[in-house]
Amino acid sequence: MNSREDLDDFIKNGHKQYLSHLSIDPVIFGYHDQQLKILLLRWRGLNGWGLPGGFIRKREPLSQAANRILQERTGLDNVFLQQFQVFGDSPYRLQERNAQEFANTYGFEVDTDHWLFERTLSISYFALVDYSRVSVTTDFFTDGYQWCDVSEIPSLLFDQNEVVEKALATLRLQIYHQPIGYNLLPDKFTLPEIHSLYETILGKKLDPWNFGKKLVSLGLINKLDERRSIGAHRSPYLYQFDKEAYENALTQGIVHTY
Amino acid sequence: MNSREDLDDFIKNGHKQYLSHLSIDPVIFGYHDQQLKILLLRWRGLNGWGLPGGFIRKREPLSQAANRILQERTGLDNVFLQQFQVFGDSPYRLQERNAQEFANTYGFEVDTDHWLFERTLSISYFALVDYSRVSVTTDFFTDGYQWCDVSEIPSLLFDQNEVVEKALATLRLQIYHQPIGYNLLPDKFTLPEIHSLYETILGKKLDPWNFGKKLVSLGLINKLDERRSIGAHRSPYLYQFDKEAYENALTQGIVHTY
Repeated sequence: MNSREDLDDFIKNGHKQYLSHLSIDPVIFGYHDQQLKILLLRWRGLNGWGLPGGFIRKREPLSQAANRILQERTGLDNVFLQQFQVFGDSPYRLQERNAQEFANTYGFEVDTDHWLFERTLSISYFALVDYSRVSVTTDFFTDGYQWCDVSEIPSLLFDQNEVVEKALATLRLQIYHQPIGYNLLPDKFTLPEIHSLYETILGKKLDPWNFGKKLVSLGLINKLDERRSIGAHRSPYLYQFDKEAYENALTQGIVHTY
Repeated sequence: MNSREDLDDFIKNGHKQYLSHLSIDPVIFGYHDQQLKILLLRWRGLNGWGLPGGFIRKREPLSQAANRILQERTGLDNVFLQQFQVFGDSPYRLQERNAQEFANTYGFEVDTDHWLFERTLSISYFALVDYSRVSVTTDFFTDGYQWCDVSEIPSLLFDQNEVVEKALATLRLQIYHQPIGYNLLPDKFTLPEIHSLYETILGKKLDPWNFGKKLVSLGLINKLDERRSIGAHRSPYLYQFDKEAYENALTQGIVHTY
């Protein structure tokens, strides 16, 4: 949505095209060089940083809507995007002050019955990407973006600090069940490479020896009969994700059983 | 809702009181005597078995709505109830045939604009209770219930078979992270007792010796310096859930770290 005409139509007729009081707000984690960040957009009219959100079309399947919104706001496509929670405990997300400011910015009348000011429940998703490969696009509603380190998240719009915290907790929990980090490492990787990835995501030191043993015993990665030569006396073994175990995890919901 | 008057008001004016196109449909797992069942209600007018569902009031916090619906439909209160997924991939849940039948049963005109026939996204929760302690109540919309073994689930309304499958997968995944089985065992229990519970929920045999060792090493249970006398030469050690580890799991989202 980039023209004034599109915008006017959206504000006036959006409630005919979209399901009211529901939004999708993905938390996009970006990993690169042992840093973990999230994507924030600056929302014009709301005068603050927030997640890249959007609405669901009336007949659009939910998962399709999530992918469309992510694609529209960030240019990202074909990403592992996982729903994790609906946030709906605060009856109103857009407070009166915000509503006034928002309406002023876009030049329309404030009316508490307006569909954009209805109570909104947020269906939250998360994804993990290599942020060095992403080109973020902004639109009429957003005038800037940043990849913000997870340890330095500013005060966000609505209840989105809680959303981000919960997303991080879920990511950390699911890293042993879901193929979250799948496309962040080369197809064949060394133990130190996956060790760094896990340390960064979990935000703490992991014993390298026990860590490798655990991943293998959980069936997440397989040791290959192949080494990488990285120096005169250094040629570490290579490992690969066990695709079957991961696919099993995605359908059965469990990797490690007892 | 048990009088004809209440019902008429609900059908006519429900859209003023409830958020449209959203429902809450909890999957209630019941455990007793090494059996795992789910609660199904027979929905009059839809002529089939389904989950105990309901709508969210316009200003009602989401988690409060979930607890109210569970309480209204089943008499259950103070239950560990956890949201796990929104189902919204099928654009219409109530098909035309169902809508006609439903409207006929309750004596109102079929109108595709009617709020009850709008596309509905379902926010799903699950809980685990001791079903021998539950008294289920039905209302105007439901005329029967059953506790149905998880291996014998009949064809359910809408996409609810998928909902139940996903709930079971989530339960099985989270049993090692969340205090799901907390109130299903006595405060102090023997290894065979918790072993039976886990075998039943996971639906498979677990090696008793490794299982106990694992639970202790994951920090989920603590071995007490106390035994239960159950016979001449039998006095197994007692165990207790590690409340702190569980509380930590609930806030941090992780129990076992590497």
